[in-house]
Amino acid sequence: MLPNSVKNIIDCLEDLPGIGEKTAERLAFAMIGFSKEKLTSFADAIMAVRDKLTYCDICGNISEENICPICADKERNSKIIFVVEKAKDISLFEKINIFSGKYHVLGGLISPLEGIGPEDINIDKLVSRIEKDNVEEIVLALKPSIEGETTMQYIKKILENSKVKVTRIATGIPIGTDIEYIDSMTLEFAFEGRKDI
Amino acid sequence: MLPNSVKNIIDCLEDLPGIGEKTAERLAFAMIGFSKEKLTSFADAIMAVRDKLTYCDICGNISEENICPICADKERNSKIIFVVEKAKDISLFEKINIFSGKYHVLGGLISPLEGIGPEDINIDKLVSRIEKDNVEEIVLALKPSIEGETTMQYIKKILENSKVKVTRIATGIPIGTDIEYIDSMTLEFAFEGRKDI
Repeated sequence: MLPNSVKNIIDCLEDLPGIGEKTAERLAFAMIGFSKEKLTSFADAIMAVRDKLTYCDICGNISEENICPICADKERNSKIIFVVEKAKDISLFEKINIFSGKYHVLGGLISPLEGIGPEDINIDKLVSRIEKDNVEEIVLALKPSIEGETTMQYIKKILENSKVKVTRIATGIPIGTDIEYIDSMTLEFAFEGRKDI
Repeated sequence: MLPNSVKNIIDCLEDLPGIGEKTAERLAFAMIGFSKEKLTSFADAIMAVRDKLTYCDICGNISEENICPICADKERNSKIIFVVEKAKDISLFEKINIFSGKYHVLGGLISPLEGIGPEDINIDKLVSRIEKDNVEEIVLALKPSIEGETTMQYIKKILENSKVKVTRIATGIPIGTDIEYIDSMTLEFAFEGRKDI
């Protein structure tokens, strides 16, 4: 009984992660209440993502240029590379403003179960960047899951004979979390990673 | 550091109800992963809402025609009108398929506090429909809040001298809800609305 244009918006919204039928309806009806100008900007923003957005030739970050602003920034240290799974992870680290090196986006993690091998993710370019720029350290900022661990071990192994230092961000108990809610694997990592105080 | 096209999508998504910064980012990154075709349909759907969607001349429902499919349906009983606050409410009642009359969308509720008077909502058209179509019953399906009650009392009053029967949907305890979580006003309504079993 809903007009087709509304049904179509609901369908599109339902394709988004975590948006079920009810939420999609609620959002669609909110959009119906938007001004024509706001609807135009919304549609334009989507078309800009479709038409302008590409991936950085160097690091794989999303970008509107062939080289992303981070890779193009001469002020940033190119001797240290943060290796992340997804472009989104870059914005998380950039927000906390703790790192002034470069990034590398793998675009996935090795997962034998899902048939994703090393050749399916952006590792070759990482290796050639390390050689070309004489990179001194790569920091693996991948999630501590089976896939993340496999990927970290693989990268560590192929760089065995290289001079680059390979580190990983710490696995442990998040601040504010009660230890009773932490799984035993994380506790093990937290114990192994203990530090003097 | 995010590309402008991504920032713009995040801004648009944040205008939606219940979508905060973090969710907007998550949804925007999901949209970046959409195919070009999917992005095109999404933008097209928004533009269709902008360009095609209008309000039914008779009942105020959203529609792509001047007369909505419900008002145009000769099979439906035009002697009984369900009065709702928002167009969305129509789809809720249509889904449960209990009603084969017509609807009327007020587009708001009387709220002296917010400066919304009877002239600001779609009441005049309701009165003329009742006269013109010799409507026998109007069912007020408005939320039982101060604004809803005020609006129901107002409509009841202006139809005092008319032959139309004015009813309201029941206020009471929703199925599956424990009575201890129900406010005293609702309990009072539920008591007053008690029925023989």
